[in-house]
Amino acid sequence: MSTAASLGDMSADEFRAHGHAIVEWIARYMEHPERYPVLARVAPGDIRRALPAEAPDSPEPFDGILADFDRILMPGMTHWNHPGFMAYFATSASGPGVLAEFLSAALNQQAMLWRTSPSATELEAVALGWLRRLLGLPDSFAGVIYDTASMSSLHALAAAREAAVPHVRRLGLAGRADVPRLRVYCSDQAHSSIDKGVILAGFGHEALRRIPCDAEFRLPPDALGAAIAEDRSAGVLPVAVVATVGTTSTTSVDPVAEVAGICEAEGLWLHVDAAYAGAAAMLPEHAHILAGAERADSLVVNPHKWLFTPFDLSAFFCRRMDVLRQAFSLVPEYLRTPEAAANLMDTGVQLGRRFRALKLWMLLRYFGADGLRGRIRHHVGLGRQLARWVDAHPDFERLAPAPFSVVCFRARPRGREWSEAGLARLNEAILARVNASGEVFISHTALHGRFALRAAIGNLQTTERHVARAWELVQEALDAELA
Amino acid sequence: MSTAASLGDMSADEFRAHGHAIVEWIARYMEHPERYPVLARVAPGDIRRALPAEAPDSPEPFDGILADFDRILMPGMTHWNHPGFMAYFATSASGPGVLAEFLSAALNQQAMLWRTSPSATELEAVALGWLRRLLGLPDSFAGVIYDTASMSSLHALAAAREAAVPHVRRLGLAGRADVPRLRVYCSDQAHSSIDKGVILAGFGHEALRRIPCDAEFRLPPDALGAAIAEDRSAGVLPVAVVATVGTTSTTSVDPVAEVAGICEAEGLWLHVDAAYAGAAAMLPEHAHILAGAERADSLVVNPHKWLFTPFDLSAFFCRRMDVLRQAFSLVPEYLRTPEAAANLMDTGVQLGRRFRALKLWMLLRYFGADGLRGRIRHHVGLGRQLARWVDAHPDFERLAPAPFSVVCFRARPRGREWSEAGLARLNEAILARVNASGEVFISHTALHGRFALRAAIGNLQTTERHVARAWELVQEALDAELA
Repeated sequence: MSTAASLGDMSADEFRAHGHAIVEWIARYMEHPERYPVLARVAPGDIRRALPAEAPDSPEPFDGILADFDRILMPGMTHWNHPGFMAYFATSASGPGVLAEFLSAALNQQAMLWRTSPSATELEAVALGWLRRLLGLPDSFAGVIYDTASMSSLHALAAAREAAVPHVRRLGLAGRADVPRLRVYCSDQAHSSIDKGVILAGFGHEALRRIPCDAEFRLPPDALGAAIAEDRSAGVLPVAVVATVGTTSTTSVDPVAEVAGICEAEGLWLHVDAAYAGAAAMLPEHAHILAGAERADSLVVNPHKWLFTPFDLSAFFCRRMDVLRQAFSLVPEYLRTPEAAANLMDTGVQLGRRFRALKLWMLLRYFGADGLRGRIRHHVGLGRQLARWVDAHPDFERLAPAPFSVVCFRARPRGREWSEAGLARLNEAILARVNASGEVFISHTALHGRFALRAAIGNLQTTERHVARAWELVQEALDAELA
Repeated sequence: MSTAASLGDMSADEFRAHGHAIVEWIARYMEHPERYPVLARVAPGDIRRALPAEAPDSPEPFDGILADFDRILMPGMTHWNHPGFMAYFATSASGPGVLAEFLSAALNQQAMLWRTSPSATELEAVALGWLRRLLGLPDSFAGVIYDTASMSSLHALAAAREAAVPHVRRLGLAGRADVPRLRVYCSDQAHSSIDKGVILAGFGHEALRRIPCDAEFRLPPDALGAAIAEDRSAGVLPVAVVATVGTTSTTSVDPVAEVAGICEAEGLWLHVDAAYAGAAAMLPEHAHILAGAERADSLVVNPHKWLFTPFDLSAFFCRRMDVLRQAFSLVPEYLRTPEAAANLMDTGVQLGRRFRALKLWMLLRYFGADGLRGRIRHHVGLGRQLARWVDAHPDFERLAPAPFSVVCFRARPRGREWSEAGLARLNEAILARVNASGEVFISHTALHGRFALRAAIGNLQTTERHVARAWELVQEALDAELA
């Protein structure tokens, strides 16, 4: 081996050989995802114990590394790209998305400044513009890509703080007699990322007022208004409201228009968390879910949830991007550039930014808007089918409406008196049995104190056969528990 | 096309065909990176104007999308993976790293919970354990991967706040008579991410006290001690110190051991930002740069900077991970799991977590520790060579020590009186000429009020030929300016 080669990268020919082998590996994976149990069957520590405690001193052949990947790591994967994955929110790393990530990794673009990647910077605006129009949001919204909805919502809370607390960027929150306790509002169904956001931004967890939801798991506007009035009279400063379009447990839709009216009257920042369900607004029959969102200050939709984009890509839309820039724009001399162009580092806390727009752009074109709508409609249809099966079975009951592709239900066998604790134990046992099957992975939640099984449909390869099998496994698990 | 196919993903055969074509495309890119100008030559708006304003309704063939990628997007790339990239910090998306990202995208692992990816969760601990030992850090440090150093340092500041301010998670910072103004310390050479971190965490920008550096751009411990004493006597609460190992402008190394002594005496959180230079601690001749870091509370090293890892992967090591978990652990019912295993979502604000450990593990094995050391040593040697050339030239002067692979210098032609403003104009013009060449991309900084050219060596394909050519272009640009 020449000195140059031994100091350089893997040779292009070696990259070719391994690259082609990996293409074949992934193609086989796409063809037969059901070869693998969807939920990993290892025990905590198994993977770690199979690996040495120290890095090797000498180079190892890539073939051997790939063989270890197959032998040691594959058994420890939970297969998010498996058609039986129905836990949390089901996702898809679609073919065009995966190929785009491959190109993005090789190009290693870093879109902190326009000049460090004009294409990544401008394609981000273009792809988000496409998505914005598909969602029916007006062009008063600008967009920026973050990694996760956690970060999108955190930036919304930071912008809300910037708008509400004078000089907060310069003076912060501590030791100020002129800044009272602050408050952020959401329903008790809002995602835990809102809690983490208020903690990190220095509001404190108690500053998040989680309003009890109504019978259909939505934020009740009257209770929101009353809470704001109560806080104001107690000297607390209301800052922001987070409305959710597609809550995590039941995919409920908060009444965004009514909440927007309250926010406008009260001068509060309205952030809409549509991380999961926002994608459904592309369909005419679901467009109403974002009614009122055009009056929000910010909104997040995650293409890595229900738009078939490999993880990670969170799309953040904001009507007041100037406030976000006011909070975070900070240009040290070494990042000053001559071009009159927006630099995306100015809209966030993260300086480094991957070329995430490429995968969104490629898959929007590959599937086309109609193709995406058809796939989402298909998933909604599968969810409704499952809901009908549950509703028709005398030993099961549905625990929430199923407006999209997520169904919450539980077993409640006839002919016996059940305590809530007894039903929780029964359904937790059913959950464990179903997930041990390797064919299906579902999750759970708590709804008004009840333990609920939760099936979420959203993978591109999921068909009616998989949903029917999930339902069959649930029934078999109940039979086994009662036997 | 069958209904199933039209509702599913790209077929495996189509994935094969495009995947193999992309492998060939990337291999050619690796073979001839110098085909492309390193700094993109487009003007702001060029890329955006070349693309339609709306997504297509109908699916498009992937071939056509790839053709547009080549025709429209490639001219707008700044080539971070080009051997002439010497701006900011030079990076490398190495072959094994790119292949690992390809697999990671296809598997779409999401390591929020142990059960949602046992392999990603445990490999993260293993790969960071390997890296920790290579850096010479003791096993009192646990590790977690974030996306960027911005996020690693933000988490360090949040943990420092948690340790210093009673009940801050619950009560926050606002409206509390028991919490005084807070202070965080660093040198005036610390990275701008520290500023953004104190802003986001609610300290306020004024809470960051940037101590003027010494003649070699290091944090002076005496001045740090005096600042802390002054703040305490003024009723301000010191919270944390950020020491930098490899500052952004000059790669200077703060006296970590002395700073650690002050932090221990004062009870302050010490965070070490070794994002760039930390990798050099793997070499025996540079191991001293982390002397004292074993007494730090936290430390960040970015494998996506100088360890040949495709962007993004920031390694965060912490001696008090319990404090971070105390700040951020929050488990809603829908994320509760039966296993007795650590869930990585508990150590951060981001719930979603990509499978980043795979690329670090694969490339540590592929290159081997000795191979990585040899490459870093080679880059340091190239930097020193450039420094010698600058030092030997009567019309140039070096503006800072060059302990690693970054050289700061400027033209200062003999036989003429120069104002600082005149030198800044001259060197800015040189910078623009060099970067217009397409062969080399360097950046700049300001050092004690002087405009400095800044060449950073760190790409795997950079050889002495590229550094010599950069130096030649700088001299030619000076000649042209003086002509």
